[in-house]
Amino acid sequence: MQVSIVLYDGFTALDVAGPFEVLHHLPDAQVSFVSSTPGMIQADAAPFALEAQDLDAVPDPQVLLVPGGNGTQAQLADERLLAWLRRVHETTQWTTAVCTGSMLLGAAGLLEGRPATTHWYELPSLAVFGAEPRTARIVESGRIITCAGVSAGVDMALYLCGRIAGDALAECVQLGIEYDPEPPYDSGSLAKASDDVEELVRAVFRESYGPPYAEVAASLSQPRAR
Amino acid sequence: MQVSIVLYDGFTALDVAGPFEVLHHLPDAQVSFVSSTPGMIQADAAPFALEAQDLDAVPDPQVLLVPGGNGTQAQLADERLLAWLRRVHETTQWTTAVCTGSMLLGAAGLLEGRPATTHWYELPSLAVFGAEPRTARIVESGRIITCAGVSAGVDMALYLCGRIAGDALAECVQLGIEYDPEPPYDSGSLAKASDDVEELVRAVFRESYGPPYAEVAASLSQPRAR
Repeated sequence: MQVSIVLYDGFTALDVAGPFEVLHHLPDAQVSFVSSTPGMIQADAAPFALEAQDLDAVPDPQVLLVPGGNGTQAQLADERLLAWLRRVHETTQWTTAVCTGSMLLGAAGLLEGRPATTHWYELPSLAVFGAEPRTARIVESGRIITCAGVSAGVDMALYLCGRIAGDALAECVQLGIEYDPEPPYDSGSLAKASDDVEELVRAVFRESYGPPYAEVAASLSQPRAR
Repeated sequence: MQVSIVLYDGFTALDVAGPFEVLHHLPDAQVSFVSSTPGMIQADAAPFALEAQDLDAVPDPQVLLVPGGNGTQAQLADERLLAWLRRVHETTQWTTAVCTGSMLLGAAGLLEGRPATTHWYELPSLAVFGAEPRTARIVESGRIITCAGVSAGVDMALYLCGRIAGDALAECVQLGIEYDPEPPYDSGSLAKASDDVEELVRAVFRESYGPPYAEVAASLSQPRAR
């Protein structure tokens, strides 16, 4: 069972490590980190970095996982990566994305006409790629699974573990990583956070990540339309 | 705000990445990975590895975090690491451990007479170090915070974030990482997992990690006692 996790400059550490911690327990799993720029890949916060092989090092992964991160929008123009996602998806058992990783599946054309989700900040942007944005922790559509932001990768990976290897293994992995969450605050979604918290986080994201892609795409398309 | 995360061969990826994803948002945070064997440090599952500086690269961290992992028991004999933990703890604001990282705080003598927790598999072993084992997600005792296994590091880091920088920042970080967990199974603690699941996981741990340290310590002390 080949599990390929795509890395790129500006991935989010937990988007990768959460699913990794679950998926390496799949029967006979061999997890690989792959990138269109092999070598040490920097996360979106220092000093976190992981080493990746070239995309072509693993030709036919059964499970593909694309994480999100501050660097996602910059990857939307990486034609080699997008072509690789399209080709690899033809033979995967499961093609998955965490957080804004969904944007890359979208840019590769894989979400056209499909329900999908991503980090709440970018959720409306999925429509740019012809997807149907859904507010949900996990969205399964055919062989494609997308999930909400960052920490949702753990939930998705356990779900995927169950789909691939059965409930018993998923329950064993959950006990193994003692995943019995007790968040000390209740501010983890737009529905639960206060207006002040939402406003602050939107401002910080706009500063560090940039505007949501739907805005970027609209400003790009306007001059062409005139 | 210097945050030092200790790495050693056989750390668990999520023990590090979960807290990292929260703590790098602390005001003026500078996170460092440090190790008594600097260089690329392999996690307990391939190909996850992170690069660490020498322990002495960061002399006086305000926050110290020790992750757990399959390699923890082997580190109990690393006298340089244990001496460093004792010394650095003298001036930290917070000394923390995730999962079996608590064992290293214990071996350094920092948990003597204190309530503490760790991964359920090693919980009774904390008594070997004079700690009072507690079944809890997070245990705070003076400047020391310990937490349950692997995924508990996210809960602990959010708690710590609130203690250091206030509830508003912790709530912002929680929304930023969309930490609104929806585990697809309910098997994340000994109280919730079925007996079959518990038995399976104990068997796998005994094979991959070794017996709980309390057993190892008892077998080591017996010949000396005779």
